[in-house]
Amino acid sequence: MRAYLAGPDVFLPDAPSHAARKAAICAAHGITALPPLNEDVAILAAMPEDSAWRVIFAKDLAMMEQADMVIANLTPFRGASADAGTLVELGWFLGRGRPIFGYSNSATPFAARSEALLRAQPDPMPGLTVGGFGLPDNLMIPGAVETGGLPIFTPAQDLPFDSLEVFARCVAAAAQRLLG
Amino acid sequence: MRAYLAGPDVFLPDAPSHAARKAAICAAHGITALPPLNEDVAILAAMPEDSAWRVIFAKDLAMMEQADMVIANLTPFRGASADAGTLVELGWFLGRGRPIFGYSNSATPFAARSEALLRAQPDPMPGLTVGGFGLPDNLMIPGAVETGGLPIFTPAQDLPFDSLEVFARCVAAAAQRLLG
Repeated sequence: MRAYLAGPDVFLPDAPSHAARKAAICAAHGITALPPLNEDVAILAAMPEDSAWRVIFAKDLAMMEQADMVIANLTPFRGASADAGTLVELGWFLGRGRPIFGYSNSATPFAARSEALLRAQPDPMPGLTVGGFGLPDNLMIPGAVETGGLPIFTPAQDLPFDSLEVFARCVAAAAQRLLG
Repeated sequence: MRAYLAGPDVFLPDAPSHAARKAAICAAHGITALPPLNEDVAILAAMPEDSAWRVIFAKDLAMMEQADMVIANLTPFRGASADAGTLVELGWFLGRGRPIFGYSNSATPFAARSEALLRAQPDPMPGLTVGGFGLPDNLMIPGAVETGGLPIFTPAQDLPFDSLEVFARCVAAAAQRLLG
């Protein structure tokens, strides 16, 4: 079974070694990791910006096509919710009907994170109301993840952004569910 | 042709009348609008939170199934990027291979918006680097939209959050493309 490792991990300063650590955890559970890494595309550095991003998009989409499932890092990133690119990928797997698993290193509910963000950067107009429903993120996200049969894995307390503790728990549960 | 109207419009204080204005613009171009509106689900108010969100998720997914395309409002919302739920829906249409069209009321590039957000709410650790590529949002978003054959429609200057000026331009172009 091959798992696409969606997440903002690709933005980490040590993205390749971090991806290798995630791949080792997956391998220990019989899962082959497919981590998107722009460092793998040597040609990118030499390309103009407006070609480079299309190469990355096509590369990630091709990797998703090869994957039997997605294990998504839904830790909040640059806003109240999970990383934007990760969410497009999550939706892609939902559209394809392939198993979705997800985790977050944040223990803080979406509603509380939204309030904190609004204190730092208010909405552009008053009266915008988003239901929190006690969930870890916008309802479309746990909705998508629950189609995989498991909830979004979260820690008891906020963990460092690059912690792999909850990821390991999520991978073990995904393997148990799909491989028995 | 039926278009699912993804976007944070559902959070507006006057969401039903706003959706009616969007539907009228679509109808003028021969497109039937499918706007997700929680106000249509009378039963919701009487439901406990942990049932209500699943009803909304199932309702939105069923509406997406009925749609021939998506016209997504990608105006930034509570972060550097478009609304989280909208992005899951965008990915769903990408996964299904159905036409995607999108617009934003922000004229500010993603990189500049990210910098502004980071001044208000810094990253949880140093060294996180996201390529801007001169794009209006995370590259997965223009990548998804361009599969529809058109770029993300943006204004020359930032418009009010609930402006329908760019939406109207996007609908006209989508109709021209699909209906000729």
